[in-house]
Amino acid sequence: MLCAGLVFIMHLGFATLETGLTRSKNTVNILVKNTFILCVGILAYAFFGFGLMYPGDFNGLIGSAGLGLPIGAQGLTSAYADGGYTYWTDFLFQAMFAATAATIVSGAVAERIKLGPFMAFSFIYVAFFYPIVGSWKWGGGWLDGLGFYDFAGSTLVHSVGGWGALVGAYMLGPRHGKYVNGRVRPIPGHSMPLATIGVFLLWLGWFGFNGGSVLNADPGATSRVLMTTCIAAAAGGPAAMYTSWGLWKKPDLSMSLNGILAGLVAITAGADQMGLFSSFFIGLIAGITVVLAVSFFDRVHIDDPVGAISVHLVCGIWGTLAVGIFGDMAGLKQFGLQLVGVLSYGAASLLVAFGLFYALKKGVGIRVHIEDEITGLDLSEHGMHAYGDFVIDDTH
Amino acid sequence: MLCAGLVFIMHLGFATLETGLTRSKNTVNILVKNTFILCVGILAYAFFGFGLMYPGDFNGLIGSAGLGLPIGAQGLTSAYADGGYTYWTDFLFQAMFAATAATIVSGAVAERIKLGPFMAFSFIYVAFFYPIVGSWKWGGGWLDGLGFYDFAGSTLVHSVGGWGALVGAYMLGPRHGKYVNGRVRPIPGHSMPLATIGVFLLWLGWFGFNGGSVLNADPGATSRVLMTTCIAAAAGGPAAMYTSWGLWKKPDLSMSLNGILAGLVAITAGADQMGLFSSFFIGLIAGITVVLAVSFFDRVHIDDPVGAISVHLVCGIWGTLAVGIFGDMAGLKQFGLQLVGVLSYGAASLLVAFGLFYALKKGVGIRVHIEDEITGLDLSEHGMHAYGDFVIDDTH
Amino acid sequence: MLCAGLVFIMHLGFATLETGLTRSKNTVNILVKNTFILCVGILAYAFFGFGLMYPGDFNGLIGSAGLGLPIGAQGLTSAYADGGYTYWTDFLFQAMFAATAATIVSGAVAERIKLGPFMAFSFIYVAFFYPIVGSWKWGGGWLDGLGFYDFAGSTLVHSVGGWGALVGAYMLGPRHGKYVNGRVRPIPGHSMPLATIGVFLLWLGWFGFNGGSVLNADPGATSRVLMTTCIAAAAGGPAAMYTSWGLWKKPDLSMSLNGILAGLVAITAGADQMGLFSSFFIGLIAGITVVLAVSFFDRVHIDDPVGAISVHLVCGIWGTLAVGIFGDMAGLKQFGLQLVGVLSYGAASLLVAFGLFYALKKGVGIRVHIEDEITGLDLSEHGMHAYGDFVIDDTH
Repeated sequence: MLCAGLVFIMHLGFATLETGLTRSKNTVNILVKNTFILCVGILAYAFFGFGLMYPGDFNGLIGSAGLGLPIGAQGLTSAYADGGYTYWTDFLFQAMFAATAATIVSGAVAERIKLGPFMAFSFIYVAFFYPIVGSWKWGGGWLDGLGFYDFAGSTLVHSVGGWGALVGAYMLGPRHGKYVNGRVRPIPGHSMPLATIGVFLLWLGWFGFNGGSVLNADPGATSRVLMTTCIAAAAGGPAAMYTSWGLWKKPDLSMSLNGILAGLVAITAGADQMGLFSSFFIGLIAGITVVLAVSFFDRVHIDDPVGAISVHLVCGIWGTLAVGIFGDMAGLKQFGLQLVGVLSYGAASLLVAFGLFYALKKGVGIRVHIEDEITGLDLSEHGMHAYGDFVIDDTH
Repeated sequence: MLCAGLVFIMHLGFATLETGLTRSKNTVNILVKNTFILCVGILAYAFFGFGLMYPGDFNGLIGSAGLGLPIGAQGLTSAYADGGYTYWTDFLFQAMFAATAATIVSGAVAERIKLGPFMAFSFIYVAFFYPIVGSWKWGGGWLDGLGFYDFAGSTLVHSVGGWGALVGAYMLGPRHGKYVNGRVRPIPGHSMPLATIGVFLLWLGWFGFNGGSVLNADPGATSRVLMTTCIAAAAGGPAAMYTSWGLWKKPDLSMSLNGILAGLVAITAGADQMGLFSSFFIGLIAGITVVLAVSFFDRVHIDDPVGAISVHLVCGIWGTLAVGIFGDMAGLKQFGLQLVGVLSYGAASLLVAFGLFYALKKGVGIRVHIEDEITGLDLSEHGMHAYGDFVIDDTH
Repeated sequence: MLCAGLVFIMHLGFATLETGLTRSKNTVNILVKNTFILCVGILAYAFFGFGLMYPGDFNGLIGSAGLGLPIGAQGLTSAYADGGYTYWTDFLFQAMFAATAATIVSGAVAERIKLGPFMAFSFIYVAFFYPIVGSWKWGGGWLDGLGFYDFAGSTLVHSVGGWGALVGAYMLGPRHGKYVNGRVRPIPGHSMPLATIGVFLLWLGWFGFNGGSVLNADPGATSRVLMTTCIAAAAGGPAAMYTSWGLWKKPDLSMSLNGILAGLVAITAGADQMGLFSSFFIGLIAGITVVLAVSFFDRVHIDDPVGAISVHLVCGIWGTLAVGIFGDMAGLKQFGLQLVGVLSYGAASLLVAFGLFYALKKGVGIRVHIEDEITGLDLSEHGMHAYGDFVIDDTH
């Protein structure tokens, strides 16, 4: 229950982070998107997703419990029966996870995607795709049987969201003015305090994301998970800061913040198996990697306003593989299994995300008009400003 | 204890929501008001209110435990005796509830009320009125005996606050420039991120508000309450968004946010009795209702800057009546009892709020001078700006 | 675990409070500092501090457990053995405390200190100094043996940070333009909502700071601590507001916020020993004191942008002494012991903070160039603006 609350607060963290790192003329649009995802994510998961994901003992590919939450006295009674950890809380906790996958996509496609198609994509991704592939591992499906390990979702949540983000950002193309004559023109965010609030709230939420994944709340195991989570985050932030300091002569705040997130994403797959030093090392590598990845995606002109692909996809993969290097079963065999998991989720996510975005692009279009993009989505899609009283300079 | 913390955070939610939906020139004033209410609410409840509300076995109209918290070793000992849920926590939890009633009023009277009279009103409402009428139900008073049901305060907290808000907004009159020549001129808020942060924090706080009202923390019952609370909120937000989209051709962020709150207020009365579908339906109706109510109050020229009356009063009534429609005892008899409760609290609140505001208006005046209102209360009442460094355009 | 989460959120509170009370041109710098302190505080405490502080049965001056967290199966096993409260959680909780001491310094030296030297100071203060002096009391050292009492750190955390803040602010000198021709020129903060968010989050975090210090989570004792904490905060806020109202004819928001913090700091030393009235009185005195202290430090031209010295040092001392006046062992003897503790920590902190800042000043310089200070540290040290889209008036 507590952990569902903490994971809930992650959605506020995502909303403020994405808002802070983008321009003020698209703020209302981003807040609408993030609010919508949370609401519809919960509803979609309640009416469709939950039953698709658990228990999954049917055939290992799709959960067998039918669509949505089973209703009725019996379901409720069994919830009481298991003591301590209950059915409804489990649902809430998982619904928050499911909505996270769509929120990750939201950051990468910000400032240029049409609201309607984004909503359609999110709904299908959360309600159907996420739970089906989720059941491969957490529903006891074929990857679980194989021995693939992902404690709290470096792959199942973060890379699934990250692949969607990659496809979305690629198919939309970069924001107007981001790459001019082959050169990268930075588009700074409009509020660093909002971005920082976002990352602190996400860190706090991760206490619930990872801590809550110790489902029976064993105090020893839970507190170990919290320790590894914190150490990885604390290593990732300074690692990214010093990397950016070395590369560009200035300690960069956005990179430090993304470094913290990178550490959090990376530790998630093995948070219950790591020790002090392996957590530190996983976070350190993640923090360095995220800076290089952000540079890389800019070089190939994939425009990701908040760095979501670098954080969630790249570091999600790193964290998943790290279980094969530092985890309890570390070795070539486990590393291979982790790779199989990474590739399976990658293939499925790429396929489905591409199919959905392609269909939406052909069907209704996914990108706003260029004039609307320059004016800002707040005015064009919502008819209002986010900051009514302030004098804004939106020449960039 | 956890839940007292969550309900505490609701006060930050109310403060940021109210701040975000109003103009930057009144921001300091709103923050002072909300900070003051929280502090004085806690003190007032500790020294006066708590004893007035519980146990209420005296005569069914006023609690019999004397004023305030009973002091001394005996009180403390009995707190230890009941195990798990203790006296002091109960006090804190209830004090946070009590302060909520005054905070609701704060939003509706924002941008034009004098600080001193508002403080006087809040103090009396929290210290004396709220606990006395609260004891009618939660202190085991006459409405409890009758069979009226209000799980966590759709009526006892939200409509009590909402009636006060209605009276306050009516007696103050609209803000300068809101209704010009019979037409509504929207006065946009100054920070949509602050407003969104507010609603997310309120939603989180509601986990504690409703979840904590399952006083013995039975895991099954608590998690059911969290599920119903979340489903209603998640239904209310999109319902309000699509309603505004249909009416005004734009998906409105403020309405979506108020729709979430509407769902939360409405589910509060029966959060422990509803199922998946009834929660969904209650939230859905609340989300649609709140948009229509905001329009209605604008049409009758009752100026409520944040929509507090529509959210807390209108949807508080809807939620209370819904217990008679979907609850465990649903039927004409229960519906009648719910109506009796709604009307009783309505009559008492209207009477007392009107008496207090009338006395203050006649005695010292409740509205700031028109020049001060145009300048903004921050400068006129507090001698400072909320945003010292920013260039502000306050022509509206 | 919950309490570690709450204390974690205090760091977001400190970051937003310090950001809100300073100018927008130094916002990125402050966010970098606060993010860094949290990360490095956790790492420093994990690799060095924790073992220096506990169990301290060696000689009463320095903890004997060696550097950092003991690694290995045995440590983990013993963590499981004690049930309910575990080793790793204890570490996290204490690491958050340790980082708090450095964060307090951060506020007082804001807007003019060089990033590198500040990082060096923070690292040494958190990794070595804080745990060594912390062990004098919480590690069972000589002050614990003597009978000095400090429940959750009015002296061990807040005054240790406060003395460092005093030394730092004194050695840096005031910000450019703060004292002109012997007169105080107020430099207003740039965002009162951020400052208010900070204080509310700190208050919430204090639930964990004090509540979590009841290490075994006894519900009766914990809820008593939450009650005393809340009452002191609720008394401190209005006390400071009315004091400022009386002195300067306007109810001051910054003072009200600092009054709440003053009450929280002051109750911390004896939160488990106070009753309703003594908590109220301790908070009341703290709220009045903090306003007078802020005036005093301005009069002696010690420039503390956020009031950290007044809040954490002055009210930390008051709270520690108050245990000798209102606590369970109240009397001249206990008052004397409290005074010994205050003076011992004062002498040690002054000595070490002075030594560190002196060495850094002579070695590399601690203050940025005057042109960089006028331009703002965001541009000069980080090459970016915190609010890219807003038109800023930074003539003050």
